[in-house]
Amino acid sequence: MGFLKDNGVVYKPVNEIDLSPHSDEVYLYADVKAPRMAGTVARIFVWFLEMKIIGDVLLYFLKKNNRIQKLVSFAVLDESPLYVPLQPYEDVKQREESKCIDSGLTPAEQVQQAKECLQFLDKNLDESFHRWTIMDYSRAYKSQKITPLMVAERLVSAVMQSSAPGTDMSFFINYESRDILKQATESTLRYERGEPISILDGVPIAIKDEIDCMPYPTTGGSKWLHKVRPCKEDACCVKRLRSCGAILVGKTNMHELGAGTSGINPHYGTTRNPYDPNRISGGSSSGSAAVVCAGLCPVALGVDGGGSVRMPAALCGVVGLKPSFGRISYSGVIPWNWTVGMVGILAGTVEDSLIVYAAVSGGAETQQPTMNQQPKLYIPLLKPSNQMSGIKLAKSKEWFNDCSDDIRICCLTALDNLYKCYGWQTVEVTIPDIEAMRLAHYVTIGSECSASFAHYLEKFDKSESGSDVRVALSVYGAFSSRDYLQAQRIRNRQMKIHEKIFGMADVIVTPTVGITAYEIKDDVKKTGELDYVNGASLIRYSIAGNFLGLPAVTVPIGYDKLGLPIGIQFIGKHWSEDMLIQIAYAMEALCKAEYKKPKVYYDLLTEI
Amino acid sequence: MGFLKDNGVVYKPVNEIDLSPHSDEVYLYADVKAPRMAGTVARIFVWFLEMKIIGDVLLYFLKKNNRIQKLVSFAVLDESPLYVPLQPYEDVKQREESKCIDSGLTPAEQVQQAKECLQFLDKNLDESFHRWTIMDYSRAYKSQKITPLMVAERLVSAVMQSSAPGTDMSFFINYESRDILKQATESTLRYERGEPISILDGVPIAIKDEIDCMPYPTTGGSKWLHKVRPCKEDACCVKRLRSCGAILVGKTNMHELGAGTSGINPHYGTTRNPYDPNRISGGSSSGSAAVVCAGLCPVALGVDGGGSVRMPAALCGVVGLKPSFGRISYSGVIPWNWTVGMVGILAGTVEDSLIVYAAVSGGAETQQPTMNQQPKLYIPLLKPSNQMSGIKLAKSKEWFNDCSDDIRICCLTALDNLYKCYGWQTVEVTIPDIEAMRLAHYVTIGSECSASFAHYLEKFDKSESGSDVRVALSVYGAFSSRDYLQAQRIRNRQMKIHEKIFGMADVIVTPTVGITAYEIKDDVKKTGELDYVNGASLIRYSIAGNFLGLPAVTVPIGYDKLGLPIGIQFIGKHWSEDMLIQIAYAMEALCKAEYKKPKVYYDLLTEI
Repeated sequence: MGFLKDNGVVYKPVNEIDLSPHSDEVYLYADVKAPRMAGTVARIFVWFLEMKIIGDVLLYFLKKNNRIQKLVSFAVLDESPLYVPLQPYEDVKQREESKCIDSGLTPAEQVQQAKECLQFLDKNLDESFHRWTIMDYSRAYKSQKITPLMVAERLVSAVMQSSAPGTDMSFFINYESRDILKQATESTLRYERGEPISILDGVPIAIKDEIDCMPYPTTGGSKWLHKVRPCKEDACCVKRLRSCGAILVGKTNMHELGAGTSGINPHYGTTRNPYDPNRISGGSSSGSAAVVCAGLCPVALGVDGGGSVRMPAALCGVVGLKPSFGRISYSGVIPWNWTVGMVGILAGTVEDSLIVYAAVSGGAETQQPTMNQQPKLYIPLLKPSNQMSGIKLAKSKEWFNDCSDDIRICCLTALDNLYKCYGWQTVEVTIPDIEAMRLAHYVTIGSECSASFAHYLEKFDKSESGSDVRVALSVYGAFSSRDYLQAQRIRNRQMKIHEKIFGMADVIVTPTVGITAYEIKDDVKKTGELDYVNGASLIRYSIAGNFLGLPAVTVPIGYDKLGLPIGIQFIGKHWSEDMLIQIAYAMEALCKAEYKKPKVYYDLLTEI
Repeated sequence: MGFLKDNGVVYKPVNEIDLSPHSDEVYLYADVKAPRMAGTVARIFVWFLEMKIIGDVLLYFLKKNNRIQKLVSFAVLDESPLYVPLQPYEDVKQREESKCIDSGLTPAEQVQQAKECLQFLDKNLDESFHRWTIMDYSRAYKSQKITPLMVAERLVSAVMQSSAPGTDMSFFINYESRDILKQATESTLRYERGEPISILDGVPIAIKDEIDCMPYPTTGGSKWLHKVRPCKEDACCVKRLRSCGAILVGKTNMHELGAGTSGINPHYGTTRNPYDPNRISGGSSSGSAAVVCAGLCPVALGVDGGGSVRMPAALCGVVGLKPSFGRISYSGVIPWNWTVGMVGILAGTVEDSLIVYAAVSGGAETQQPTMNQQPKLYIPLLKPSNQMSGIKLAKSKEWFNDCSDDIRICCLTALDNLYKCYGWQTVEVTIPDIEAMRLAHYVTIGSECSASFAHYLEKFDKSESGSDVRVALSVYGAFSSRDYLQAQRIRNRQMKIHEKIFGMADVIVTPTVGITAYEIKDDVKKTGELDYVNGASLIRYSIAGNFLGLPAVTVPIGYDKLGLPIGIQFIGKHWSEDMLIQIAYAMEALCKAEYKKPKVYYDLLTEI
């Protein structure tokens, strides 16, 4: 940071910042004073906030005493705005352990290339719990002991069971048994003819209800959005999966308009955590994390604009991969923002996240001038990871430690094990101004949402939305252009700082979230919940992945005292997904023997 | 356009717009209702506007009934924001008539290359008025009939004469005779040794007071900015000129903070038009245009964020060249905005603008990811222009015609002559939503100014600024992040529209400004002037050059009934400066026999 002058912080020039562990940079703890609100209290607050003049006055005071002014809007810094989190493509170099995928291949061909990178893998033969993988499905179908149709029937019945009163997991917003069975029948016929399209043929995959997927409306978790923005065709990433033969099994539940981290949704129910159905699954890609956790699909797609894939993945004990900004086409995803969101992958294993990553990568449009060429796609050759030596992991101590004791201990143990087993060293660093970056990201995503959604919002009946969403939309609309531009200057500054950090280490390592899944209170059902304290704890480690466009992956590494999953996060340089996936694979290898079965779990593949 | 729905315009998708002359797109005339204000009335208005709550309410109503809401902030359109007006560099192709300049050359070497492109030129031998050119200076110095020191002495005396009471042209904000004479002495010694650095050696060049140039403070036309932003070294473009041996003769007057188009400055006096000292010179690069017009320098540098080079060039009857966004380094220019401004060149002839363009091009930093490589620099081989055949000029009728009768007739005659002499055809087109683009540009430049200047503004005593600047700063601070983002969507849309227009023609042709120089009223001296009607007429044709980053050039082609200069503007594709300069050269060749001498004119070169 720098010093406070008049109303804003004066930031040090980047070259003068000490990034060593002995730096005098101060770590700012999130300073969230807002009390939790739900039910009637939340309703009254929203009622005031939405009043014409009183609302404006309220917002004025909310803004005035806010750190956003001090750390962002009134800050003094040298950097010009950086509007889009991209790096020049020259930086992408091929690593020895990776394979370069030719451009111009079909999704199925890319999947085949990825499969060839899995050659060292054997089926998990030990006694520990493991979820069925894409290769498990593919082998089972090929052996004809089980067919896609049988899996689809089991899936439909499991989903019905999961949504029965009493269980009420609220995994999906929409699914159509007929459509699922039809796809499964076609896949089964392909296997009967000995002509499966790819290893994804017949594999059930769920899609977050923020991504267009026929024949479903795209609700974005709301009651109204699909009425004004009809879904006319598959999103690009869905099209690619469908072309590989995957069975698209429906639209998963999510936090309303993606505007929250809990997955509490007053319209479609709160997605429950399969490890403890009284607790949240995290959000906003809540359903996608939960269905993978519960065994309904080996993989699901989510969207990550502020940790929305990685947070629920961590809370549900699955893998969450958010690729570099611009890596996957955003076409057919609700355009809530332009510069922070990216399609992400939730999977039971790192291997599966790699396969689906290979399937959906490519076809991104060129909306910004920089995007006139696609970066090359590299696939890591997954192998026993002690062969990948010399990896350095950057760790910023106070930030890393700003989480619950169980999470901290679990993550530190994981780092110890990486050192013991592979010799990977943790490099202590200081990453400054994490809190300023979180606030600048908030201004950015809020402003972009406000601009992209403005004309929809005019038509929408506010009473149809949860209190948390209504508060968010009011705040989003109150940002000035100066707030937004100052946030983009912070973005440029952090991009430079992170470039320096990546000069000191290969990846940054953090816990994925600061707390494990918390309890769903009774008062949230109709109004949703305003809980900025827990929200800040969840989102703490996610921001660089979105605001700076960096790829990031979360891997489950253990459980807290209550048996709730804990994840560790690796953040890489732009376009370094291949290295990240390989690191995640090595991490998983050390932990998977300890994986526990969730309380709610469906086995779709065991031969009967 | 599209249709008005609720509060905003619904724009047609770009592919559905008819760009032919028979299009049903409606041309919106600027709808400026604000009355002209100056003196006491302006003071009272500012006083209200700057009051805490009353000011906010006033701004609320100013915004509410403004077209900005309808055409920008509440507009419905498909495009995502385009934040930086750049095109991928792949588009730059070498034209037959141009020469590619090797990268890595020094400024002096680039000037030498440019000189070699002037091979077909002879000294102007006819009787008509012409200003001395760089080549005239260079030849005179080489023949030793006149020295740089003699020119510098004449210049200093002419400047003193021009600023004497009674004349009071207010050309400069700062100049130091000693520094000028010192540079001239060094240059003279180089010629004596037979070692001039380049053809620019000893040539007087003036710099707009928005660009850092030692040993002067950079006031930006204000009374306070240089106190908080000291000038520590030459701007990159100035450094390049100095390295060619040019004599930097001082800092020219400008509209305060660049925030106006008239050049009326309450602190340093209103720059008067050498063709009629009772009239404005235009702005904001008022002094740079006027000194070239008055013969004090063959060339001056300006900065063009919204026509600020081209407008005064047209009003003063000189050439004004605004290169593509990103072509010239912005380092050392007051960072009032990040995405619309560019250093520009004011010159007596097209030939001279080319020489200085070659000197200052290069060295631009890479602030945005796209800027990681410099576009190649091409220099046109200036030659009798009937050899350049088949040029097509796009003309959008209603827009073109939205100017005074004298200007319209003069520009149409010029187009006729281009056809008669060179066979160049005018292609009638429709360029839609010009007015929306003007407003979106206004939101953009205002927002960026507000963010970049916020921390300076807190220190500044408002009473030290003119009323027009204070109103501008109040309005700039009132834009929301939604306004800004919507403006960037309009930018993307217009970029696509212009790409289509450039598929139909080589350049766009317009008058440079809608009116000729207007009179300076008596009441402007202390407060400046709020005159949005004349402002809109001046800026009407400038916006694409800034908001879309397109290169543009204005050439003097004649005079109105009062003898005031008229300019024509050519707007090209990104990076097509070489073609633009060649077209401008051809245009100039048809008109230069008619050029008239200004009332205020100094001859620095005639041998005594």
